[in-house]
Amino acid sequence: MKRLLLISSDCHAGPPPPGYREYLDPQYREAYDQALPIQLKITEERQKRTLADGFLAEWKQGVVATGTRGAWDSAERNRQLDDDGIAGEVIFPDGVTDRNAPPFGAGLAMPTEGVVPELQWAGARAHNRWIAEFCAQDLTRRAGLAVVPMFWDVDEAVREIRWAKEHGLRGILIPPLFGSHPPFHAACYEPIWSTCEELDLVIHTHGGGAPDYGDHLGTIGIYITEYAWWSARPVWFLIWGGVFERHPRLRFVVTELGASWVPELKALMDQRFGDTHFNKKLADFRSHLKLKPSEYFDRNVWVGASVTARSDIENRAAIGVGNMMWGSDFPHPEGSWPETRRFLDESFHDLPEHDARTMLGLNAAQVYGFELAKLEPLVERIGPEPESLKLVPARR
Amino acid sequence: MKRLLLISSDCHAGPPPPGYREYLDPQYREAYDQALPIQLKITEERQKRTLADGFLAEWKQGVVATGTRGAWDSAERNRQLDDDGIAGEVIFPDGVTDRNAPPFGAGLAMPTEGVVPELQWAGARAHNRWIAEFCAQDLTRRAGLAVVPMFWDVDEAVREIRWAKEHGLRGILIPPLFGSHPPFHAACYEPIWSTCEELDLVIHTHGGGAPDYGDHLGTIGIYITEYAWWSARPVWFLIWGGVFERHPRLRFVVTELGASWVPELKALMDQRFGDTHFNKKLADFRSHLKLKPSEYFDRNVWVGASVTARSDIENRAAIGVGNMMWGSDFPHPEGSWPETRRFLDESFHDLPEHDARTMLGLNAAQVYGFELAKLEPLVERIGPEPESLKLVPARR
Repeated sequence: MKRLLLISSDCHAGPPPPGYREYLDPQYREAYDQALPIQLKITEERQKRTLADGFLAEWKQGVVATGTRGAWDSAERNRQLDDDGIAGEVIFPDGVTDRNAPPFGAGLAMPTEGVVPELQWAGARAHNRWIAEFCAQDLTRRAGLAVVPMFWDVDEAVREIRWAKEHGLRGILIPPLFGSHPPFHAACYEPIWSTCEELDLVIHTHGGGAPDYGDHLGTIGIYITEYAWWSARPVWFLIWGGVFERHPRLRFVVTELGASWVPELKALMDQRFGDTHFNKKLADFRSHLKLKPSEYFDRNVWVGASVTARSDIENRAAIGVGNMMWGSDFPHPEGSWPETRRFLDESFHDLPEHDARTMLGLNAAQVYGFELAKLEPLVERIGPEPESLKLVPARR
Repeated sequence: MKRLLLISSDCHAGPPPPGYREYLDPQYREAYDQALPIQLKITEERQKRTLADGFLAEWKQGVVATGTRGAWDSAERNRQLDDDGIAGEVIFPDGVTDRNAPPFGAGLAMPTEGVVPELQWAGARAHNRWIAEFCAQDLTRRAGLAVVPMFWDVDEAVREIRWAKEHGLRGILIPPLFGSHPPFHAACYEPIWSTCEELDLVIHTHGGGAPDYGDHLGTIGIYITEYAWWSARPVWFLIWGGVFERHPRLRFVVTELGASWVPELKALMDQRFGDTHFNKKLADFRSHLKLKPSEYFDRNVWVGASVTARSDIENRAAIGVGNMMWGSDFPHPEGSWPETRRFLDESFHDLPEHDARTMLGLNAAQVYGFELAKLEPLVERIGPEPESLKLVPARR
């Protein structure tokens, strides 16, 4: 392709209320009718505490006013992506500001405490049906993810993962926090990892979930300092637990967590793994690992670095050029939409062209199995020109 | 001083069982007699799971065999410190491999769940009496810390802090995990911060406490990857909570957590604090802070970088030369004792002399109020020569 293939590794979709109703198993619809006003009220109150006054009202002016319909309207969505120059996308739940979140706590944060497991599963299945249908309207551009609240019931999780594969979804989203359940490296979850490897489904966490810090002065600052750690945490549980050793083809993506923490994490794990004065007292903790922790990271883990920061791009060698995937976060207000071209100008300029193409689209194409031949005509129509970013072509 | 002042910011002391008995309030002695064999058994079983076979037995050969008596024997302790070239020390609990830990879970990890608060307090008071007496035998060299299980009862914590000051202790050790209690930035703890600032007592966390990861393959690797994060965590709770804004003279030390994480943490917090596209949606979270988060870190936080890694020393500008304090971890096996001189040769060589002196002793002298004039004769007898480390003297 001459133009740049942009694949957003971080987009969101979901119908506005009560759109999930018809996708729920019938026996949960009455509970949904009762829960919905409560859920909306809770969301509104949380937003009052955490969002700047008038922010959402102001943001929803202009193009955004109609464009957010793209959270559930297929044609509008493609129009917005076209205008942003984006050919392909990976789709998470929680369309716009939580009004479009799946029922019963089956959204991004996916709590593992204080919810009714049966209902959360019902909400997850409703979203999975909806997103499978939504993606089926344009399988060339859309890679959808199934919500899998894996901690309640591993057999149920495996069934849902198989359902997701059969219905064209490309990966699953799991909760970042294990709460009081066995942690991610416990052997009981092995069937989940096996099934995802077997079916070539990509496992995800996404920024959002974090412990409850209470309503104290400073809570927002603490949250924005820590939230990436919580959703990235499963990575080192799976590395040390030997999950990637046993499942070399398993792919794990951590999305919207930035990437600045990656070099320190890899260096730290390798230091801990090595022969040091400090760990010689420890019982065997590594003979089940044939590679260094950073090697599992490089091979099995990708970073959905939404609206990638220039500093992370400049640090791409340490993070891993082959592990970084740009994303627009459409249609969330902290994303680059509807000004993706301006954001790219500011962050991806003056790079070796191959590196830019790798992070902007080729990594995601490979991880999620996008068909480049099918995307090419679209890219040549809507994709940015490499010259627009002053990219440096490879020397012959 | 001509020779180098070494102050170890991380040492440990405590009597072997049943040495704490006479320091307990009488009504808890029977409970101690009953709990002690259980505590020792639990420790032994944990060590079987986590320590290499025969490690402790082997380690306790040679000089270490008698030297570990320094965990409770004042003369032996000073002999061992002399041989290591160390003039002053900051003393935490948990003398040797947990046999010498305070009663009822009042040691380093200080759990906030699964213990009886009244007993943990009793254990803390017993240790505080013991350590106050132990330090009184050599106040020139020893800065002792009081154990303060602060989450159960703030008034009790304040009383214990005042007791500690009156009995010559120089700081307090608090639990790293708040469990189900209000988090560190909650207003209810304000009297603790006020009292420590008023009395010029240094607040500490120390590596050790972490959640229970269960007995799964990979648990040790996860623990050694995460443990520093857990004990460092109160730092950003206090920064964002405005504690250092309200208490500009408060000093907080995080000990035995390494220092490699400091630059990324400071940069991350400042990025979050700044004006970014990503945080403009957020409600006010910073108008109560007059400084940037990294500025509070630089002013109010020190890093007890025990057996400091050469890589951290080389990165001292980013970490903060004025915030790093070396430590020997005497008498723990992962520390530098009894080979401190060799460790210093390997890590502190070829530095500007002033930087080395700052990290090896002058920072700790200032933070804990060691009297240099009183230490000087000792230093000139036992301290390493600057030439031995090939330090680079300041130009005139």
